[in-house]
Amino acid sequence: MQSLPGFRDFLPNDCAARNYIFNQWRTTARRYGFVEWDGPVLEPTELYRKKSGDEIVGQLFNFVDKGEREVSLRPELTPTLARVIAAHERGFKKPLKWFSIGQFFRYEKQQRGRLREHFQLNCDIVGESDFAADVELIALCIDTLRAFGLTEKDFVVRISDREFWTDFLRQQKLPDERWEEILQAIDKSEREPRDKTVERLGKLADPVLAILTDGGRSGKIDQLVDGLGARGLAGFVDVDVRIVRGLAYYTGTVFEVFDRAGKFRAIAGGGRYDNLIAQLSDGAVSMPALGFAMGDVVLGELLQERPAAREKMETAIRTGNTVDIYIVVAKEECRADALAHVQALRERGYRVDYPLGPEKVGRQFQAAEAAGASIALLYGDEWPQVKVKKLATREEILVPGDKILSQVDSLLK
Amino acid sequence: MQSLPGFRDFLPNDCAARNYIFNQWRTTARRYGFVEWDGPVLEPTELYRKKSGDEIVGQLFNFVDKGEREVSLRPELTPTLARVIAAHERGFKKPLKWFSIGQFFRYEKQQRGRLREHFQLNCDIVGESDFAADVELIALCIDTLRAFGLTEKDFVVRISDREFWTDFLRQQKLPDERWEEILQAIDKSEREPRDKTVERLGKLADPVLAILTDGGRSGKIDQLVDGLGARGLAGFVDVDVRIVRGLAYYTGTVFEVFDRAGKFRAIAGGGRYDNLIAQLSDGAVSMPALGFAMGDVVLGELLQERPAAREKMETAIRTGNTVDIYIVVAKEECRADALAHVQALRERGYRVDYPLGPEKVGRQFQAAEAAGASIALLYGDEWPQVKVKKLATREEILVPGDKILSQVDSLLK
Repeated sequence: MQSLPGFRDFLPNDCAARNYIFNQWRTTARRYGFVEWDGPVLEPTELYRKKSGDEIVGQLFNFVDKGEREVSLRPELTPTLARVIAAHERGFKKPLKWFSIGQFFRYEKQQRGRLREHFQLNCDIVGESDFAADVELIALCIDTLRAFGLTEKDFVVRISDREFWTDFLRQQKLPDERWEEILQAIDKSEREPRDKTVERLGKLADPVLAILTDGGRSGKIDQLVDGLGARGLAGFVDVDVRIVRGLAYYTGTVFEVFDRAGKFRAIAGGGRYDNLIAQLSDGAVSMPALGFAMGDVVLGELLQERPAAREKMETAIRTGNTVDIYIVVAKEECRADALAHVQALRERGYRVDYPLGPEKVGRQFQAAEAAGASIALLYGDEWPQVKVKKLATREEILVPGDKILSQVDSLLK
Repeated sequence: MQSLPGFRDFLPNDCAARNYIFNQWRTTARRYGFVEWDGPVLEPTELYRKKSGDEIVGQLFNFVDKGEREVSLRPELTPTLARVIAAHERGFKKPLKWFSIGQFFRYEKQQRGRLREHFQLNCDIVGESDFAADVELIALCIDTLRAFGLTEKDFVVRISDREFWTDFLRQQKLPDERWEEILQAIDKSEREPRDKTVERLGKLADPVLAILTDGGRSGKIDQLVDGLGARGLAGFVDVDVRIVRGLAYYTGTVFEVFDRAGKFRAIAGGGRYDNLIAQLSDGAVSMPALGFAMGDVVLGELLQERPAAREKMETAIRTGNTVDIYIVVAKEECRADALAHVQALRERGYRVDYPLGPEKVGRQFQAAEAAGASIALLYGDEWPQVKVKKLATREEILVPGDKILSQVDSLLK
């Protein structure tokens, strides 16, 4: 019996790493005043078709359920956000600052950093057209990565503005129906041979390539970079007009986050999508919005690769799975008294483990070390005194059994 | 656009309630020395068919994926546990004490307390046949519910022993192939009219009904109750031999948790399944095991209904979504300085919010109250001094801008 291809089991250390990532995500988003929400992992397929057209269906984990409904495991959160916002926005003060941590699915060919499921942090600001929201969102994205011990040497946020290009295309009098094709060619220009890009761009090849070489500037992007600079975050961003992001629904600021060394796929990406909520709600609700998503897979690879970040993660994994106290039952006659203390210490909030059956004392101390306990309490010949051993220093003291709680408090608090 | 029937959206307050439940689950399991793990939400359908036979498939969210695989959204965790244990047990010291928090799915008719998805805490001990493991597991189940502020007045663990009945059936010389049928009749005896039970039991009606009326005792159950009594938990348990649990794979201790008033469905249930890992791994690995599962839906209903537990949950919901500090920008000229403090305070770990655009001061204070901030910092005419206002007492003090971090520390720490 095997698990399905592209799906992960999370053994205790993997799960502790996952919890570490979720904790940093959650803590940072809350520091920014974002509140958590979530949607279902299964949605009507129509929700995604409506946003992205029929071609998206080829990449979905979709099926027909027993009630003849076309349903999909969610590939992304934004359509669900639009649905929930359209139904409930009246109950909330604007702007909404919402985040979510959940699992997403795609039926794709497997490759490095790209499974069939992954976890994502999604952060969105809804109901604010002011540019300050763009700064706030990108600052959150940066600080989320900084929370893992990553620095400006490790990653960069490449920022662009869709309007920079749509203004340009309008100026060049390119018919609307060809915009998408040109934007795609720009998006792909970094990864494709120049010939191919020139061919795709056609008559626009010269002016577009001039901008791509020169870097291109726009007042709006400058303002964005200034806003991040005022927060001390300028070192984390590069203006890069080649970033247009494949998705058609972005309307303004767009950004992608990469490792500086360019070794991995994008760590995160997002932008402004001012028309999407109206489009998905058939015009019932129209609100400006922007957001980003960050996955756990590429991030996890980067954390493994950067020494300071890896050490921080490994410490969190270690402490996530340790106990505070291990109870050593040296004489079975003492087991009942030992168990009463197990219960009392757990009720006090300590993490406590002990041997479920009779076991040699030496092996119990091995188990105490393996469980990462700070102290071991030994119940044996000394009872009604308890031998308290600090495992790091091997210091031992004898404590009367009825004083054990206060003694443990003073050792561990 | 609607969500699918039986699937929940988690708006911020719902999500905070969910996080509260997960946190209590996780904290209590860790106090017991359990470590967290998880499996995929999608598994081969065969994994469930193998454990529960073809009839289970009728209740599954199952489908054929694009690679022609028969797959299912997981209805429960135990088969995944058996698969993971069979593959990885050699890497871990026994007994394993593992817990998991995840989402599970069934394609069922909707009814109160029973959606098509729910979240479950699963706790299992693998590799320990000693009865002490049964006590440890049930104690954890009880303490998990106590962590929510529930008491012995609110819930009861009804404990039985499958072997009590299998010994009895063996003694009655009932052929093995009829055991399941009789155990089902006992399981249903509480919910069905007596006539029906008598009919199902056939020749065994008299002795079985005598036991059910009398209560029946077994040395093993007594030992279990004594073990829980030694931990001060006897008041939470009732011996009840009518509990056999429908699932065929239980081999020893079985238990179910109900609200004392008998108003809701089971809150949790579990037992010992010593043969299941061998069965699911085709004999590759044979290990005694026991576990329980607790869902979020019935638990959530009970927490809403019991005043002390509800208040505890509501406090957690409130504090989960609040900020510590709200920054009031009274003069736009001060915005850049205010934003520098926003950044510095967030980097210090505080939860900080502020208005993204120009806003009347009164409305900003309203937003501060709505966000549950403890203090507001006002940047206006007083700059380079900041007006610090404690929102609970409306006390105000002026603090030099460069002293704001230490001032906030002393107010909030």
